[in-house]
Amino acid sequence: MTEPSLPAVSSTTLEPRNTRGPRIGVFDSGFGGLTVLKALLPSIPGAHYIYLGDTARLPYGSKSQATIARYAVSSARFLLEQGAEFLVIACNTASALAIEDIRAAVPVPVLGVIETGVSQARLTSDSGDILVIATDATVESHAYSTASRKVGLTALEKACPLLVPLVEEGWIDHPVTAEVVRIYLSGLAAEASAAGLTPDTLVLGCTHYPLLRPVIERTVRWSVIDAAEATALEVSRQLAFVGAVPNASVGKATSRFFATDSVAKFRRLGAMFLGQPIEEVELVDLGG
Amino acid sequence: MTEPSLPAVSSTTLEPRNTRGPRIGVFDSGFGGLTVLKALLPSIPGAHYIYLGDTARLPYGSKSQATIARYAVSSARFLLEQGAEFLVIACNTASALAIEDIRAAVPVPVLGVIETGVSQARLTSDSGDILVIATDATVESHAYSTASRKVGLTALEKACPLLVPLVEEGWIDHPVTAEVVRIYLSGLAAEASAAGLTPDTLVLGCTHYPLLRPVIERTVRWSVIDAAEATALEVSRQLAFVGAVPNASVGKATSRFFATDSVAKFRRLGAMFLGQPIEEVELVDLGG
Repeated sequence: MTEPSLPAVSSTTLEPRNTRGPRIGVFDSGFGGLTVLKALLPSIPGAHYIYLGDTARLPYGSKSQATIARYAVSSARFLLEQGAEFLVIACNTASALAIEDIRAAVPVPVLGVIETGVSQARLTSDSGDILVIATDATVESHAYSTASRKVGLTALEKACPLLVPLVEEGWIDHPVTAEVVRIYLSGLAAEASAAGLTPDTLVLGCTHYPLLRPVIERTVRWSVIDAAEATALEVSRQLAFVGAVPNASVGKATSRFFATDSVAKFRRLGAMFLGQPIEEVELVDLGG
Repeated sequence: MTEPSLPAVSSTTLEPRNTRGPRIGVFDSGFGGLTVLKALLPSIPGAHYIYLGDTARLPYGSKSQATIARYAVSSARFLLEQGAEFLVIACNTASALAIEDIRAAVPVPVLGVIETGVSQARLTSDSGDILVIATDATVESHAYSTASRKVGLTALEKACPLLVPLVEEGWIDHPVTAEVVRIYLSGLAAEASAAGLTPDTLVLGCTHYPLLRPVIERTVRWSVIDAAEATALEVSRQLAFVGAVPNASVGKATSRFFATDSVAKFRRLGAMFLGQPIEEVELVDLGG
């Protein structure tokens, strides 16, 4: 006891919960997860968000489960080192293939976008038949079908590989994108009909797709579930349950951004997903 | 000299050149380079082609020069181990960023698609102003501008990031693709005009783009240079120069395919690029 006056390093974690906002780690392989952060920002007063985009190692989709799990676990650990007390896996591929590995590796609550999207669809669907559009990798994992079956829903999944490049090209409100969306969704409707399903709900199973929600809603009559919004709702619910949501007086939410590659591209494209400028992105090296 | 009757392991490399076809290694980060192999196949009688797609480590485009060079050199060495006596770098990113590293690392001739495409454009262009469409990474490297300047051409480069996903979706002869091509190329024409250029030649600076040649040629009046064809021409020229092209009696060309990941996807998509079915793809591990 030679330095009794020094504060303990972890002192901030001991403050009463209602005097500061919780620290929430948000993880994606890229910047699509910023649509989840965008939904989170207004939902919890005074929360501190730590966002990590593992851009150097994307795309996760083409890699093996073991590799994806290794990348996702190292990313989750990094967010804990930065002080995260709650993790949101804002990446469909990592939610599909690595969420149990992440839960086994870190001692904080972990929430993935697939389970929250499906829970929301369960509340919305009357027929019990839902449709899911996602990337190749997410569809091949059948994670949405598996999660849907657990809550009594039947899900028909379709890969829409052109939608991410169209969003990244910035063609959000563009006739080409409207036509591509029309082709994919009319194909999906025909497949559902051929399978004898009567779908009433469409889940956006990729964190890039919320930017296309207006064009999608102009194309179909189904209820559209944005997993980003569903996740934000579930995070507030879980934090409120453990008394970790402070009163509004603690002020507005703050964010800190980390990326493993191409900070300039992250800032440029990220602003489109977050819906506001990103001042600073810190480069971090998580190894190969 | 205890086993004088055993043939030497390398005996086949000692055969007179005109009794067998040369062994040509063709390398790409994926399967786009198969358009180059497609152009090579009919061009050299009896050649033996060894194709490597480094699919586990793609896309190269988003990685640093040092990493791309490391991947490309290990891929080139693998092809030499398989017997390649001549290397074709059928990958624009590797040609742009790693060709000198490859040349320094292997003792055989190395030809890249950028230099051959630009040489062909030099023969074709009257005005001396050429246009190049390519991926983001190739455009950012300005390798086509640099190579063009060396032969007295002025090149205007444009990234067309939607074209690779459209080709990989199989939308080759599709109204959406025609519209995307029209938008990109009319944008490029406007940029050229604003820069005071009078272009007469368009170089397809990505090995995916030859599949879109018909739709591109329906859209513009420029001469279209397919680097795949230009490369095949240059390989036969160089091999003829060193007397390594056998007479036609040695029979038809053979091919062997290697990929570092996703053999099934390689076979499925690769057939589209090669223009014929691919019977067998061998999986190879080149490490991280």
